Amino acid sequence: MSKELVFGHQNPDTDAIVAAMAFAYLQQQLGNDVEAVALGEPNEETSYALRHFAAATPRIIKEASSEVDSVMLVDHNESQQSVADIKDLTVTHVVDHHRIANFETVSPLFYRAEPVGCTSTILLSMFNENKVEIPAQLAGLMMSAIISDTLLMKSPTTTEKDRIAIKTLAEIADIDFESYGLEMLKAGTNLDDKSEAELIEADAKTFDMAGKKVRIDQVNTVDIEAVFKRQAAFEAAIEADNKANGYDLFVLLITDILNSNSEALVIGEPAEAFEKAFNVKLNNHRAQLAGVVSRKKQVVPQLTEAF
Amino acid sequence: MSKELVFGHQNPDTDAIVAAMAFAYLQQQLGNDVEAVALGEPNEETSYALRHFAAATPRIIKEASSEVDSVMLVDHNESQQSVADIKDLTVTHVVDHHRIANFETVSPLFYRAEPVGCTSTILLSMFNENKVEIPAQLAGLMMSAIISDTLLMKSPTTTEKDRIAIKTLAEIADIDFESYGLEMLKAGTNLDDKSEAELIEADAKTFDMAGKKVRIDQVNTVDIEAVFKRQAAFEAAIEADNKANGYDLFVLLITDILNSNSEALVIGEPAEAFEKAFNVKLNNHRAQLAGVVSRKKQVVPQLTEAF
Repeated sequence: MSKELVFGHQNPDTDAIVAAMAFAYLQQQLGNDVEAVALGEPNEETSYALRHFAAATPRIIKEASSEVDSVMLVDHNESQQSVADIKDLTVTHVVDHHRIANFETVSPLFYRAEPVGCTSTILLSMFNENKVEIPAQLAGLMMSAIISDTLLMKSPTTTEKDRIAIKTLAEIADIDFESYGLEMLKAGTNLDDKSEAELIEADAKTFDMAGKKVRIDQVNTVDIEAVFKRQAAFEAAIEADNKANGYDLFVLLITDILNSNSEALVIGEPAEAFEKAFNVKLNNHRAQLAGVVSRKKQVVPQLTEAF
Repeated sequence: MSKELVFGHQNPDTDAIVAAMAFAYLQQQLGNDVEAVALGEPNEETSYALRHFAAATPRIIKEASSEVDSVMLVDHNESQQSVADIKDLTVTHVVDHHRIANFETVSPLFYRAEPVGCTSTILLSMFNENKVEIPAQLAGLMMSAIISDTLLMKSPTTTEKDRIAIKTLAEIADIDFESYGLEMLKAGTNLDDKSEAELIEADAKTFDMAGKKVRIDQVNTVDIEAVFKRQAAFEAAIEADNKANGYDLFVLLITDILNSNSEALVIGEPAEAFEKAFNVKLNNHRAQLAGVVSRKKQVVPQLTEAF
C-alpha cells in the first residue's frame, strides 16, 4: 500500500494523540507505511505524558490530501471532528470508542469500535490479537490515555477492560499508575496561563443535533468555583465563538476531576433542550450536574435525545 | 443484559442467515441472551446448506421492537437494508464487511468491520480471539457462507483471510469444500420455478445515491442467455417494482458463476449514470460486464462515484 496518515480528532486530547502513535506503530510492525500525525498541539496534560515518557510530539497537519490519498482515523469518526479535507480522502481504517455519526464510505473498510473508556484500550487488544509486543515507552503513553479518558477510572465510561488495560500497561511501563495518573491529570488543570478563548476551544467538539450545530467543550479542574470567577469573560468568548462559527448552542462543561462533578455554562439556543436533557433549570446560564464527568456517555446522548 | 435479536439484511443470502446464527452462538457462549432470526425466507442455496448440515432455519421476523429494545446486525449496516422498525431500536453490535452508510447511533457501540469477502470470515477471527470452539455443524454453515459470498474464491472480493477461513472451517466440518461448494452454488441457480417478480426481489438491496433510490439485484446462473430469454417479462416486473416502491434506477445483474462474468439489465433513470460508471453503452437496456461478479466491490462503488 502507499503511505497513509493516522490521526485523532481536532483539539486532540491524550487519547487522540497517543492512539494515533500506537496504531501507527502496530501498522508499521505489520509492514505498512503509516505515519502518526496530530490535528493540533498537545494540551498540557498530554505534554506532561509525552515529557514523562520522553516521546516526541507527532507532526501537526492542517490538511492531508496534498500528501496522501488514504487515512486512518483513531478516537473519532464524525467528519466535522476530523481533518478539514476529510471528504477528499479515503478512510481505510477506524479505531474508536464513540458513537457513529456523520460517517459514510464508498467502499468496505476496517472499522473497530467498542463501547469502552478509551481507544487505547481497544488498541491493547489489537496488539495482543496480532501478537505484537508493546515497547515500554508506548505502554506508558497508552496507559496515560486510558487514565485521561477515564479520569483515573472514576468516569462512568470506565469498563472492566479499561481497568485491566491500565494495570497491564503499567506493568510493561514499570510505573505506579495511581500516583503518576493523579500528577498527569493535575497537569491538565492548570488554567491560569490560558485565555477564555483558548479554554473554550481546547477540548471542544461539534455535534449535529436535529440540524443544529452544538458545540461542547470540557475543562478539567480541581476547583469549579475558581473557574466560574471568570464567567463573564467565558460568556463573551463563547458568544463571539458562536457568532464566528455559526454554533447554535454552546455547552461548556467544567469538571471537578477529584470529586467527579460538573457545572455547565450554556450559551445559545435552544437552551431549553439542555434543561430538558438534564431536567434542570438554568440559573444565570449555569447548572450543576451532579456525578457528570463524561461528555460521551452523560451529555451527548441525553442532549441528542432532547433535540 | 436483556434479550437481544441478531439478524442479517433483508432478502437474506447465505451469509446473512449464517452469520446471525454464528454470532448468536458466540454471544451465547459469552453468556449473553441472544437469538438469531432472519428478515426473510432462506433462498435455495441457503436451504441447500441448512439441509446438508441438518440445521434448523432461524425464525423469520417482520419487526423487532415489539419483543426487544436492542439488536445486533450482521452482514449489513445501512438502515434501509435492515428490519423495518430499525429506527425504534438500539443497535449494540455490528459485524459486517460492507461500506458504512446511512448508519448512525446515539451511543457508543461494538462495531467490527473488515474489508474481507464474508462476514463469517470475520466471525471466525472473533471465535478465535474469544477462544470459543466452533461446532462442526456451525463450521460447515460458516464455510458455506464464505463459499457463497466469494463464489468459491473466484470473486475479486476474496482475500487471503477468506481462503484460509474456508480451509480451516472445512477441516472442522470434515468436508471436501470444492465439490460441496460447487453443488451448493448450483443449487442457487435453479431459476425455473421462480417468477420474474420473485427473482428481481430475491437478492435485491436498495442504495441511496445522491438522493436517488437505486435498487440492485443479483441473480446467479450457469447460463446467462437462458435467463435473458425472459427479458421482456423481467422488464415488466422491474417497471412495476420501480413504480410501486419509488426506485429511480433498477440494475439487475445476471452473473455466470462458472465463467465469472455478468450481464446487466438496466431499467429507470438516470441510465447514463450506469453507462458512465462502467464506460459502456446500453443496448436494449443490456450491457455485458466482463469479469464483474461482485455487487459490493465492482458495482456499488462505481455507480456511487458516477452519481
